[in-house]
Amino acid sequence: MALLEPSKYSQGSVLGSVNPDLASERQTASFSVEELTVWLDGSEEHTQKRRAVVEAIESDPVFSRENQYFQSQNERYEAAVRKAVHLQKKMHEMGWTESGPEFKYIYRAVSGDIAFLLHRVFIRSISVLGSDKQIAKWIPLATQHKLIGSYAQTELGHGTYLQGLETTAVFDITTQEFILNTPKISAMKWWPGDMGRSATHTVVFAQLYINGKCYGVHPFIVQIRSLRDHSLCPGITAGDIGPKMNFENVDNGYLMLQNVRIPRENMLNKFCEVQPDGTYVRQGSQKINYFTMTTVRISLISDEVIIPLMKACTIAIRYSVVRRQSKLKPGEQEAKILDYQTQQEKLLPQLAAAYAFHFINDYLQELFNRGYSEIQKKNFNTLPELHAFSSGFKAMVTQYSTSAVQICLQACGGHGYSSLSGLPSLYTRIIASCIYEGENTILLLQTARFLIKCFRAASAGQPVPPSVTYLAAVKPGKCPAKNKLEFLSPDIYTEAYQHMAARLVRSTAAKLQDLIQSGVKKHDAWNQCTVQLAQAAKAHCHYITVKNFAETVEKLKTEAGIQKIMKHLCDLFALHGIFSNAGVFLHDGYVSGAQMDMITASYLDLLAVIRKDAVPLVDAFDFTDKSLNSALGSYDGQVYQRLYEWAQKSPTNKQISPAYERYLKPLLHNTQSKL
Amino acid sequence: MALLEPSKYSQGSVLGSVNPDLASERQTASFSVEELTVWLDGSEEHTQKRRAVVEAIESDPVFSRENQYFQSQNERYEAAVRKAVHLQKKMHEMGWTESGPEFKYIYRAVSGDIAFLLHRVFIRSISVLGSDKQIAKWIPLATQHKLIGSYAQTELGHGTYLQGLETTAVFDITTQEFILNTPKISAMKWWPGDMGRSATHTVVFAQLYINGKCYGVHPFIVQIRSLRDHSLCPGITAGDIGPKMNFENVDNGYLMLQNVRIPRENMLNKFCEVQPDGTYVRQGSQKINYFTMTTVRISLISDEVIIPLMKACTIAIRYSVVRRQSKLKPGEQEAKILDYQTQQEKLLPQLAAAYAFHFINDYLQELFNRGYSEIQKKNFNTLPELHAFSSGFKAMVTQYSTSAVQICLQACGGHGYSSLSGLPSLYTRIIASCIYEGENTILLLQTARFLIKCFRAASAGQPVPPSVTYLAAVKPGKCPAKNKLEFLSPDIYTEAYQHMAARLVRSTAAKLQDLIQSGVKKHDAWNQCTVQLAQAAKAHCHYITVKNFAETVEKLKTEAGIQKIMKHLCDLFALHGIFSNAGVFLHDGYVSGAQMDMITASYLDLLAVIRKDAVPLVDAFDFTDKSLNSALGSYDGQVYQRLYEWAQKSPTNKQISPAYERYLKPLLHNTQSKL
Repeated sequence: MALLEPSKYSQGSVLGSVNPDLASERQTASFSVEELTVWLDGSEEHTQKRRAVVEAIESDPVFSRENQYFQSQNERYEAAVRKAVHLQKKMHEMGWTESGPEFKYIYRAVSGDIAFLLHRVFIRSISVLGSDKQIAKWIPLATQHKLIGSYAQTELGHGTYLQGLETTAVFDITTQEFILNTPKISAMKWWPGDMGRSATHTVVFAQLYINGKCYGVHPFIVQIRSLRDHSLCPGITAGDIGPKMNFENVDNGYLMLQNVRIPRENMLNKFCEVQPDGTYVRQGSQKINYFTMTTVRISLISDEVIIPLMKACTIAIRYSVVRRQSKLKPGEQEAKILDYQTQQEKLLPQLAAAYAFHFINDYLQELFNRGYSEIQKKNFNTLPELHAFSSGFKAMVTQYSTSAVQICLQACGGHGYSSLSGLPSLYTRIIASCIYEGENTILLLQTARFLIKCFRAASAGQPVPPSVTYLAAVKPGKCPAKNKLEFLSPDIYTEAYQHMAARLVRSTAAKLQDLIQSGVKKHDAWNQCTVQLAQAAKAHCHYITVKNFAETVEKLKTEAGIQKIMKHLCDLFALHGIFSNAGVFLHDGYVSGAQMDMITASYLDLLAVIRKDAVPLVDAFDFTDKSLNSALGSYDGQVYQRLYEWAQKSPTNKQISPAYERYLKPLLHNTQSKL
Repeated sequence: MALLEPSKYSQGSVLGSVNPDLASERQTASFSVEELTVWLDGSEEHTQKRRAVVEAIESDPVFSRENQYFQSQNERYEAAVRKAVHLQKKMHEMGWTESGPEFKYIYRAVSGDIAFLLHRVFIRSISVLGSDKQIAKWIPLATQHKLIGSYAQTELGHGTYLQGLETTAVFDITTQEFILNTPKISAMKWWPGDMGRSATHTVVFAQLYINGKCYGVHPFIVQIRSLRDHSLCPGITAGDIGPKMNFENVDNGYLMLQNVRIPRENMLNKFCEVQPDGTYVRQGSQKINYFTMTTVRISLISDEVIIPLMKACTIAIRYSVVRRQSKLKPGEQEAKILDYQTQQEKLLPQLAAAYAFHFINDYLQELFNRGYSEIQKKNFNTLPELHAFSSGFKAMVTQYSTSAVQICLQACGGHGYSSLSGLPSLYTRIIASCIYEGENTILLLQTARFLIKCFRAASAGQPVPPSVTYLAAVKPGKCPAKNKLEFLSPDIYTEAYQHMAARLVRSTAAKLQDLIQSGVKKHDAWNQCTVQLAQAAKAHCHYITVKNFAETVEKLKTEAGIQKIMKHLCDLFALHGIFSNAGVFLHDGYVSGAQMDMITASYLDLLAVIRKDAVPLVDAFDFTDKSLNSALGSYDGQVYQRLYEWAQKSPTNKQISPAYERYLKPLLHNTQSKL
């Protein structure tokens, strides 16, 4: 028993030298970590660019997140504004531009801890919804930061249901202006980012009225603060909505409008216009007004969901080979907790999901790019599929990943609960993705509506998008696999998912039909099926994710080392999904109880296989220590030392609490009656 | 379109007058809310006492939690100490005592937002583990607050696996002292509450060494801070571990010991003693040293899990009848969101679970009281069952309730994510219950070990506790129900749960046996079965919870109004569990696919039935507005008004951020190069 030498612990001597328990994990990788990183990035050039951006940002002390876990909401906001402003300077210095190849790495490099994110949505909404003239006027002002923009859609009383927004914009033909108002408290804009304290302008969504007739929700550019001294403009009441579960860096705000007048030109009018005489002209679908949300929904999947999930996996898996607890065999050293089957079963499916979602994101990006180029040509045919897919996958991926991060947090025990692990902030942030840009259940039901429509169309022999032809093609049957190894065949499990998704869509469509035929009104019938409709939509997205993962692996044939481990991950993702949702596969006998036992056996076998590569698989995500900002997840695995050193910096250790003199001392000295 | 009158919104004129959408829900209750409240409390006298305590606490401004969501960790700690000290005064004033009938309501009344909680564990551990002499010496000092105690068990490197603790206590026969040391960084005590800044004493768990021989972990009373000036005692290093996901009110701490000497009398020695000559004497099981954890585990279920779950249900359900969103039928008013099947399916099963867990808590309390009276007579026979049950139910109830609170939070959309809803803090607090007092997976495996043992014993005809005789008695078979109504029979669904739990225990026991017979070493075989063992343990606890709920309802025959709604909740809890875990019921054909459709139909039907009583069912929990501390959940349902008013009090609205002058202005005025 050596005596404690505290001096050793405070000098940080061991930090940087890799914990042998972590080092050993890296010596046995079955593939090249660097090759996998490059493949994930898309090319060596991408990897280099990404690393250059991260290095430039992280070496600049202005972007430090070192004290983030100790800061108040006010301090976080101030730091976020400082970073956002400094970023402009940095970009200029480095020669980075918004349209350049480095730009997509910046958000990752600052870990989202920055202000003016809604400023970008402001810009995007004008680019998508504005006329050429409006773009020419506003985009330069915005990109040169002569104004700070926001995006004011959500109200106290209305979120995802946009048609219900209550803010009004009345066209005044005499002055050629719109008069904006917040007619009741629930109409107050509530939640828009950058609006509480920063923004000078915002895009307000309001019900358009012309001559007393309502034309529905439209977007209007409104100035809310003076460009001279930042005071609120006449008729504007605005402020911060206060503390939230996370996003302290963002000044989510509220906004009330009282007879705020804006010129006719401030209605974004690429697709809809009010002419000087009050004539309303629409070009194309009104749904295009919500298109900004579709684009945001897709872009958030990578930035706000997959990257945080990858970080959580990195932290939890590295910690799980450093943490030793209890003994697998009596007399031996305590075991690494990742050697326990239960720990593997917690973490490795989440790791597989992180890869699965990385690939589905590529799939969605491609789908989106194809659709967007059509929309720019004013061809709106792809909008329904694009909307259905962006909705369903946003819901499925955010919900799955939120659970996954929660599992990672809990898998690290008490230390995962410490803010210093980085996991609480990853969790409290990712859970918001289930809510913003469309509440998940409502999104799933929109996807379900599309699926039911396509199923009916396909059954009637009408054409449907290729991604959903399977709905009417799948026939009753039984899974042909005869032993546990056959369940490692992508054909076998992809077909099982396809069968299951088609069955859920079909049986729910039948229930809907039955209810309507039995006299239930259409809308009641729909409501009575929504639990099952949401389940069917999720099943469809799960199926497409498995299928896309399998196809991605298939294409990897030339890179044998990586393909092998990706195949294992694909198998794990698929079998985990069957194991965890056994009921929907067993229900009609497509999979038998005996086959479910084979699936379970294969699934559990895979855990032990992938466990060997677990650390290399998270190393390949290539997060720096600064980016993880975690005492548990650093590359060197010196978790206990780092927890101890970081705790020293806490404000709770920086002062003797006044609580002693005021309350504790009188209590202990029994003089409290004097209080 | 009336113009906005902001003055109306800032005067709070509508607060207190009940929102008609909430008021109407209370007019159609199928039972007496007051009667249900009394029944939940146990008697009218209990209800009166509880209300008196709550009233006394809430009317005292010292206990206010009004600004809680705006406070820093330092402010929260200081407030918690102030409240804890003031509580002593209050108790004296009110004539409340620790052993009096009011005491159990105090924690509820202060919503756990108080310091010195570990002081109570310190007292309890001495009461349980200390000799009469030690009790006589320390308990008066502690109860009179001449010292502040803590409980130092967990270390940086070891949590639930107590045998692995690394702190050492070496007996020095020459001075009749124990010498305590922290031999390495991972041995540092880490997490104990009240230890970072408050405690003067603590019970340290350390490996006892006598003459170089290790006798395992024992508890020692150690003074860590001066009673005179609160400075750290010689050889002590201690501080706060920094920010966590919640529990800002608690100063979770770290502690290092360097040659700290304490007298021989400071080892708690009711069950084990070191005699002056170094002879080690044990009376009874060493496991009794961990008994404090068993008692804490049971008591936390009510205070830290069920009450927060009830609060979350209250907030989410009240909000869901105030929030109107989208239309169920075209042309109608927007619908209350609780009228959507998907919202019902989110919230009502959680409400049913809150009731189910309230009743299982009564069951556990009774089991515990019986066991504890035996232990006091030094009869340790009931320890294994008590340990297995406290472990399994702690794991099952905390995990279920954590998910439930998360569902409540997400079901409130964006406003649920605002701290002002109260839901984020309920969530970030309840999730800790999955980790502290034993990590859930490890606890489930301890329960599983007990179940496997009992299954083998019962199969061999040996006696086992009545709660587990079913394990060997259940035979293969099929569920006899023929239509959806028959699934509302408690006999039918309780038997389905019993069958399922027994099957999981049996099949896992068989797998374990097979592996061992095929030559796999016992410990490896165990590890390879742990995923399924944990599942089996959860299934057992789920079964007992359903059975206990059904029996509780059965006993209610004399109170028809309450029995009817409780029966619905019991049915819902049971059928929701089958619907959500369909795989384990379908697996061996006990329930067929067609029967699962009947179960689903009955389950969905129940939602619409219980929805009518949803608000009365949460009103019956009888939380005051101050106790809920939620802008969404108040009795009057004025959610938008309250969100707006509370946001005004946020520190983010109390100052003009320096960020404007420093960063925003130079940016907007294009003078940032001067930065």
